[in-house]
Amino acid sequence: MSNVESGTDTGNDTLETAHGWLSDEDLESTRARVPIVYVDAVPVRVDALGQVTEIGMLLRQAADTTISRMVVSGRVQFGELIREALIRHCEKDLGPLAFPRIPANPSPFTVIEYFPDPARSGFYDPRHHAVSLAYVVPIEGDCEPTQEALDMAWYTPEEAVSVDVIAEMTGGHDRLIRLALAHVGRLP
Amino acid sequence: MSNVESGTDTGNDTLETAHGWLSDEDLESTRARVPIVYVDAVPVRVDALGQVTEIGMLLRQAADTTISRMVVSGRVQFGELIREALIRHCEKDLGPLAFPRIPANPSPFTVIEYFPDPARSGFYDPRHHAVSLAYVVPIEGDCEPTQEALDMAWYTPEEAVSVDVIAEMTGGHDRLIRLALAHVGRLP
Amino acid sequence: MSNVESGTDTGNDTLETAHGWLSDEDLESTRARVPIVYVDAVPVRVDALGQVTEIGMLLRQAADTTISRMVVSGRVQFGELIREALIRHCEKDLGPLAFPRIPANPSPFTVIEYFPDPARSGFYDPRHHAVSLAYVVPIEGDCEPTQEALDMAWYTPEEAVSVDVIAEMTGGHDRLIRLALAHVGRLP
Amino acid sequence: MSNVESGTDTGNDTLETAHGWLSDEDLESTRARVPIVYVDAVPVRVDALGQVTEIGMLLRQAADTTISRMVVSGRVQFGELIREALIRHCEKDLGPLAFPRIPANPSPFTVIEYFPDPARSGFYDPRHHAVSLAYVVPIEGDCEPTQEALDMAWYTPEEAVSVDVIAEMTGGHDRLIRLALAHVGRLP
Repeated sequence: MSNVESGTDTGNDTLETAHGWLSDEDLESTRARVPIVYVDAVPVRVDALGQVTEIGMLLRQAADTTISRMVVSGRVQFGELIREALIRHCEKDLGPLAFPRIPANPSPFTVIEYFPDPARSGFYDPRHHAVSLAYVVPIEGDCEPTQEALDMAWYTPEEAVSVDVIAEMTGGHDRLIRLALAHVGRLP
Repeated sequence: MSNVESGTDTGNDTLETAHGWLSDEDLESTRARVPIVYVDAVPVRVDALGQVTEIGMLLRQAADTTISRMVVSGRVQFGELIREALIRHCEKDLGPLAFPRIPANPSPFTVIEYFPDPARSGFYDPRHHAVSLAYVVPIEGDCEPTQEALDMAWYTPEEAVSVDVIAEMTGGHDRLIRLALAHVGRLP
Repeated sequence: MSNVESGTDTGNDTLETAHGWLSDEDLESTRARVPIVYVDAVPVRVDALGQVTEIGMLLRQAADTTISRMVVSGRVQFGELIREALIRHCEKDLGPLAFPRIPANPSPFTVIEYFPDPARSGFYDPRHHAVSLAYVVPIEGDCEPTQEALDMAWYTPEEAVSVDVIAEMTGGHDRLIRLALAHVGRLP
Repeated sequence: MSNVESGTDTGNDTLETAHGWLSDEDLESTRARVPIVYVDAVPVRVDALGQVTEIGMLLRQAADTTISRMVVSGRVQFGELIREALIRHCEKDLGPLAFPRIPANPSPFTVIEYFPDPARSGFYDPRHHAVSLAYVVPIEGDCEPTQEALDMAWYTPEEAVSVDVIAEMTGGHDRLIRLALAHVGRLP
């Protein structure tokens, strides 16, 4: 049913606003007009020295409808702070006991530009042009993947860049993982 | 006249898309639904060591309709790369001979969140919720402020944070200047 | 007694190595030859969104022998990782229950260059040329200032840049505080 | 001859100070006591949008005495600013017409910790413990490799991470290249 699908985030097919959900029609017209603001949160485990030891990835339906490994990702709503969007999407995808540590620095480690044209930037989203601010987010608690996620798993840096894991990612998410590992000095 | 004002950028009252200008009606409805992606470019002069010596500011009508000192600022269009938006707005505001050097690193030095509510983040824009990626952009050529800018002037770091210059800025732009100077290690 | 003073860090008058403490003589000759690697850790309290709410400062004898407000600071030893030095100095200055969260990103938010000549960079240390990697470090536990610190206090961003607090700092530490606040988007 | 070797930078076997060259004996004793401050400069070509198109590498004798592909690298002298060291090493290695553009931001994109023990951090230097501040440096002019460099060549991002080019690098320099490409959003 259209309404139920709109309420889910799997396909990210609905744009919420402070005034409530957008109708499918309004959504389509907005997406065709302006870039949409997104956040990508790369969940990591760190050791006592702050060094990243593992990177977390969800298994879920991606924007291109394939079942893929991906990080926490979602829209920033009208009136919402970037930090609020990061916490909201982490809680929605990782559960209420994940205790994500949003970095004190508001600057993303990189900006990912998703386009409907796969050749434009190498990052692909068939639904829209999205400008995504990407953050590495240490997770201190326990993750219970919720909603549409079929699974969540932790990978060492070596595993995260392996051929097998890369094969499970689409839309450029494998590159996003490598950029995140490089940012924390842990790209093999 | 409404149509002429729409074509200007002073009030930034029009949202362009790859499909052309948005009508005033479409513009209003889009702005009420989603955050708008912006870029802020802080023009600087650097010496032979790459050290910032001066910061450039335009005198123009700000979003709140006051005449203010401000940096280069504008929307990212549908389908446009962040880098393309930076170059486009620098050329529009500083002229074709400015030769801006967009940084190789795509990550902004900070993210400014403008809200219609001045108390929300300290950065104010009565027209919309904008998420602005802010960059420090060395200018190697000559600036000829174009379009709506009444003037462009260069300030030393000490001048840029002085009471007199701060008094000419609105909407939190004086804080943006201090964040930029801090980023390049030149905040007095 | 010289030996006791060497063991303290107040005057930072001794350079430890993997091979043990350097003699005062060896120390002097090393300091006259090469820049010394330092770390500066700015302790902060963050809220649930990761936003900095307070900044911590110690009251202790500074390099110039005045009693000053300053952040956690100290040398990196031969064979020691930057992360290990950060943890070691935080524990030494803030006590074993501070639970500092060293950032996952190894890049400092700025590099402070201290010189015996106060005019060289604005950062002054009469003892040597030090290259200090500066980090913002969220503190999750309780601080019990140890060793030479006379006091530790937390300040809001507004307090930390106030005339009164700045008057308690020497050697450019007030600028370091402003650079840290700017980095986390909290400079007033 | 000892004196000639001291004057070269291939083996980096001499530590200069503001007071002149250190003797081989003083050098050895200093290196055994404290980490040495280094800079690594990754030369790049950028297009009109500031996007990195090519990365430059020298062919020269590395610290481990092998002939390797590597970036511009060298010590920071006593009394010298980081920026001065970057310019000095770029000019020494790339010639006087390279016109390097040192970034306005003093923060390195990463910090490389070289140890005599290859297993300590993955970055290896048999001579000492070095803390190296790494920068991406756009080159606007023409490079004429000087001194000990046998060759200088430009590589696309794809070439720079290829098996063939990686095979020409030692001591972790291939990882440094990948970290630099990730920083500028160009890691394949």
